[in-house]
Amino acid sequence: MPPDPDTPRGRRALSKSRMEGFSDGVFGFAATLLVLDLAVHPPGTALQRVLHAWPGYLAYVVSFLTIGGTWLLHTALTDQLDRADQLFLRLNLLLLLVVVVLPFPTGLVAKTLYNAGGERVYVTIYGLILLVIRLLGSALDAYARHQHLYAEAREGEELHSTQRKFLPVVIGYVVALAVPVLAVALYFGIAVYLTVPFREAARALIRRHGSAGQDRSG
Amino acid sequence: MPPDPDTPRGRRALSKSRMEGFSDGVFGFAATLLVLDLAVHPPGTALQRVLHAWPGYLAYVVSFLTIGGTWLLHTALTDQLDRADQLFLRLNLLLLLVVVVLPFPTGLVAKTLYNAGGERVYVTIYGLILLVIRLLGSALDAYARHQHLYAEAREGEELHSTQRKFLPVVIGYVVALAVPVLAVALYFGIAVYLTVPFREAARALIRRHGSAGQDRSG
Amino acid sequence: MPPDPDTPRGRRALSKSRMEGFSDGVFGFAATLLVLDLAVHPPGTALQRVLHAWPGYLAYVVSFLTIGGTWLLHTALTDQLDRADQLFLRLNLLLLLVVVVLPFPTGLVAKTLYNAGGERVYVTIYGLILLVIRLLGSALDAYARHQHLYAEAREGEELHSTQRKFLPVVIGYVVALAVPVLAVALYFGIAVYLTVPFREAARALIRRHGSAGQDRSG
Amino acid sequence: MPPDPDTPRGRRALSKSRMEGFSDGVFGFAATLLVLDLAVHPPGTALQRVLHAWPGYLAYVVSFLTIGGTWLLHTALTDQLDRADQLFLRLNLLLLLVVVVLPFPTGLVAKTLYNAGGERVYVTIYGLILLVIRLLGSALDAYARHQHLYAEAREGEELHSTQRKFLPVVIGYVVALAVPVLAVALYFGIAVYLTVPFREAARALIRRHGSAGQDRSG
Repeated sequence: MPPDPDTPRGRRALSKSRMEGFSDGVFGFAATLLVLDLAVHPPGTALQRVLHAWPGYLAYVVSFLTIGGTWLLHTALTDQLDRADQLFLRLNLLLLLVVVVLPFPTGLVAKTLYNAGGERVYVTIYGLILLVIRLLGSALDAYARHQHLYAEAREGEELHSTQRKFLPVVIGYVVALAVPVLAVALYFGIAVYLTVPFREAARALIRRHGSAGQDRSG
Repeated sequence: MPPDPDTPRGRRALSKSRMEGFSDGVFGFAATLLVLDLAVHPPGTALQRVLHAWPGYLAYVVSFLTIGGTWLLHTALTDQLDRADQLFLRLNLLLLLVVVVLPFPTGLVAKTLYNAGGERVYVTIYGLILLVIRLLGSALDAYARHQHLYAEAREGEELHSTQRKFLPVVIGYVVALAVPVLAVALYFGIAVYLTVPFREAARALIRRHGSAGQDRSG
Repeated sequence: MPPDPDTPRGRRALSKSRMEGFSDGVFGFAATLLVLDLAVHPPGTALQRVLHAWPGYLAYVVSFLTIGGTWLLHTALTDQLDRADQLFLRLNLLLLLVVVVLPFPTGLVAKTLYNAGGERVYVTIYGLILLVIRLLGSALDAYARHQHLYAEAREGEELHSTQRKFLPVVIGYVVALAVPVLAVALYFGIAVYLTVPFREAARALIRRHGSAGQDRSG
Repeated sequence: MPPDPDTPRGRRALSKSRMEGFSDGVFGFAATLLVLDLAVHPPGTALQRVLHAWPGYLAYVVSFLTIGGTWLLHTALTDQLDRADQLFLRLNLLLLLVVVVLPFPTGLVAKTLYNAGGERVYVTIYGLILLVIRLLGSALDAYARHQHLYAEAREGEELHSTQRKFLPVVIGYVVALAVPVLAVALYFGIAVYLTVPFREAARALIRRHGSAGQDRSG
């Protein structure tokens, strides 16, 4: 269990388990803090109040799915990781620093939608932070690839799916930032696109019908 | 420790440890956030104020036991799990998304009980979320069973107990939703029913008297 | 790594790692939430305001040390644990339910001390919760002992130290509850008594002088 | 996996995994709570309000990097740790007790900068807490070294880098405390200095050009 002291100096394997534990904690807390922005506002009956608070629910779902999608990427990434180095740990901290901020613009966007005001600044900030989270997630992947931190033998479907989705997602965010009217709808669409595994679901359906009998012998 | 690269493509074993770590963080944090809704309200002496705040304590206990019971189910489930796949990870995220919401209606219900008002909407929303948590927990179990994600050899008593309790619990929630007067009492009863292991306690008592001497040789 | 399926039915080893992870999360969050009660109050200069807020700092330290001491007990306990059973998991949940509550009376006591009012109710509630935490911690230990959940071979110094301190601590809490004037001072004293390892520190000093040279050959 | 019962009495190996789990939780949570202090204040347009809130963002980044840097030190330290003893666990608790406090002065400093008031007390308290965190982190390292808790064979670059940076950092904090005008700028500079691995980045660049071909054969 102790890391092998024979690893070449300066590139020794840092245990990645604590990076995973700390990151899981931060992802989990950031996701949970989002609930503090849920609140029902004064006017109307109880039912009306609950219904009128929909922007908060929408922003909650978008932010939760974005954090969840980033966690899925992070898991897929560290799953293939052979080791972490010092720069990787720092890049990871930078990603977490931005993820932790997410509950803040989420609350601002919820208020903006609620007031139906034109405060596009908040929506833009929110989109920029979503974009930066995505870019930093891909930067972690690119850095690990470049420094040969991945175990060679493994081919991770989850990570490939994330890489395939990178360009469409970035284009989506840029469009959202350019056309504020569409922004929130696009953020929601991207969050769903990032977390729902359409291919895998289709494949699972096919497997279920085609090879259910073979599963047990696998 | 690295997952076997020979697992058949498209069904390779994703490490389940990070799913457990992330889930534990979210369960723990959601349970802890409940305490933010505990507060003593203005009128009366200190003792009266503390005593009058009972609805908050009751809602706290119901929500804590519901989260605790879901955690017990989740633990039993992943304990038997041989591996997770991509859809399982997403279903798990969906379950966590709803668990995290729980502190929000908990606060609303506490306020409703305190005001003795007729704001049944909050009590109903609370019950719906409790019901959805239970349904998603059982969906995880059903999905794992259907996709043969469980290790074949093991028979989990905890999971069987959860399955046995599924129908009574769902019926209990539906009755609570239909008869708001009974709702909070039923929520409390269900939470106790879910977490107190009556059978196991009885069995432990029997074991204690019948086979205490054999335990050491086991 | 998968638990041995040959364990006798009804007493099979539940993995204790998730119980530890969940408990660590809850202990950590409850300890961190305490900081939300730290606040500087309006009157006076900045320095005066900071100094006048001392009751909050004192209550913070007492609660943090109590949670820390409970975590130390919990760690020592699960360290010796061979396995957990269903009742143990529930007892553990009950302990966590009470630990999570702690930030609430901590805030009340801080306010009481600040106002120099006679609101002994809050101080009493605080003490009762501290006492219940201690009793539940010892109940976990007693249950594990009674059900032979501990590994036979090991002798845990940390756990013995906790058991040795049990009676003095309970007496201390009872005195504090009976004599409210002494309560906060006693809570503080007990928290220090629980977490500062006087014997171990003395022994470390002796070891340092007596056997420093032998340490390397050990 | 169970610790060897043959370890000499009084110095038996306490499992360090729970200390890591608990610490990761507290570090992660303290870092996440910082976001609660981010808020946009009333006057001006939405954009002006967001821009005027810069002190909060600055304080957030300084505190996050300080917690992140302490986590990096903590990881490097426990990575080399062969075992923990009872005093080490207590020193660790003390470090966490101070880390958890950090969101409190962070909020005060943000308010002070925002008001452009002369409330140096808050800035000084903030710096004192940053300094104490650093001293306690180094105390953990010194204690582990003194009690021979580290595994002999390993040479940790990360830990050496922390030790090398110790004196400049302490001098930086002392200067900041003596010259309040420079304080916040210095806190920021120290946080960057602690977390950005200049040497390692330079070395990575060199490695990339010089030995990229040899990496695969390593």
